Amino acid sequence: MSAEDPLENLRRELAEFARERDWDQFHAPKNLVMALSVEVAELVEHFQWMTPEESRALSSKKRAGVEEELADVLLYLVRVADKLDVDLWEAAHRKIQINKDKYPAERVRGKSLKYDEYED
Amino acid sequence: MSAEDPLENLRRELAEFARERDWDQFHAPKNLVMALSVEVAELVEHFQWMTPEESRALSSKKRAGVEEELADVLLYLVRVADKLDVDLWEAAHRKIQINKDKYPAERVRGKSLKYDEYED
Amino acid sequence: MSAEDPLENLRRELAEFARERDWDQFHAPKNLVMALSVEVAELVEHFQWMTPEESRALSSKKRAGVEEELADVLLYLVRVADKLDVDLWEAAHRKIQINKDKYPAERVRGKSLKYDEYED
Amino acid sequence: MSAEDPLENLRRELAEFARERDWDQFHAPKNLVMALSVEVAELVEHFQWMTPEESRALSSKKRAGVEEELADVLLYLVRVADKLDVDLWEAAHRKIQINKDKYPAERVRGKSLKYDEYED
Repeated sequence: MSAEDPLENLRRELAEFARERDWDQFHAPKNLVMALSVEVAELVEHFQWMTPEESRALSSKKRAGVEEELADVLLYLVRVADKLDVDLWEAAHRKIQINKDKYPAERVRGKSLKYDEYED
Repeated sequence: MSAEDPLENLRRELAEFARERDWDQFHAPKNLVMALSVEVAELVEHFQWMTPEESRALSSKKRAGVEEELADVLLYLVRVADKLDVDLWEAAHRKIQINKDKYPAERVRGKSLKYDEYED
Repeated sequence: MSAEDPLENLRRELAEFARERDWDQFHAPKNLVMALSVEVAELVEHFQWMTPEESRALSSKKRAGVEEELADVLLYLVRVADKLDVDLWEAAHRKIQINKDKYPAERVRGKSLKYDEYED
Repeated sequence: MSAEDPLENLRRELAEFARERDWDQFHAPKNLVMALSVEVAELVEHFQWMTPEESRALSSKKRAGVEEELADVLLYLVRVADKLDVDLWEAAHRKIQINKDKYPAERVRGKSLKYDEYED
């Protein structure tokens, strides 16, 4: 990971933010994943009464609120990965490969089933 | 965002993954945030019965499972941001600035209260 | 609460279940609410790719899976309320009254806004 | 279920609440489970920075906030079960039986593993 990786910059900035506030004592991974789940729910809240179609075309006011929640999710995700010393890019690429194996395009095209719900 | 930004690479890879499977029809932001919340819960599940201290020192087996869930969270986060045309780096930096204003270091040091719970 | 209240029966049965397994040591409210959130996500997973209309007419197979997750949510909810010594019926009726005040029928009819999003 | 079952009373009251506000149009099960997950997250938020021990001994102020969130969870749970025509008491007792089979007391005593993590 190069020094210019934006994720690495973010990781360092968040570590500094916590250190300045003496918050590492609270940032056990258990607590951070709870906080992450709360941020995701704040994102979900924006969408709960919309139809799927409406969710594809947000008003600019709604979009601004959504953007802030997406940011919060990213911040906690980066923070918990840092605390667990996980390289998110590596983990993501490994997972994409797993998904390619689980969901071969020709088999799952146009279907939303889980990998273990397909009948051969 | 430069062509070499790992996030941009991931975004393109996931868009291609969905297109090959004809999954864009399912990927309304409403649906994607639900899927994101499910992935976060799979992450939470790993930690639910641990103490905070235990969560700071995972076994290597546990850590591997956690890593995969962190990857899933990132994948859905990038995917929903793409569908909503949100620049995650910009949003994150805007949010860090907001947090700096809400939580001045000298005021919140060593405390875990929410910004609106501090008494002046 | 009468001895025949089904909720009270459930509460006692779950307390006994935990005691027999020596699980009270794990059942701190913090941990139980995490487990509750995981069960809710398993419920959400059933619905993530459906349209709202599809969710109103589940197949009998899908419905059976959903029913089991609803049960899990209830079990953890009763368990955490027990650990915190909260009377769920009282709390629910108090909350309904709050909602009636926040959302007067004539004001919110046919709208899905949050109580603080209405313009006078 | 007798007419005096408190759950049945609650179910009827919530159905009436929605009807008076013309909210059934929004109350597709998909939407209701999203709302349920948001309420659970508001509950989780109260606990995120606490230790498990602290969560066993809430201040009365904290407890009041928690109680309100527990009520919200129950309200949405009852509402979604109603919309899906699920009998929560029956589902709960069926699930307890499943749990008794999955987690025999003598096997799991004092352990927090998932049923598929035990080695014989």
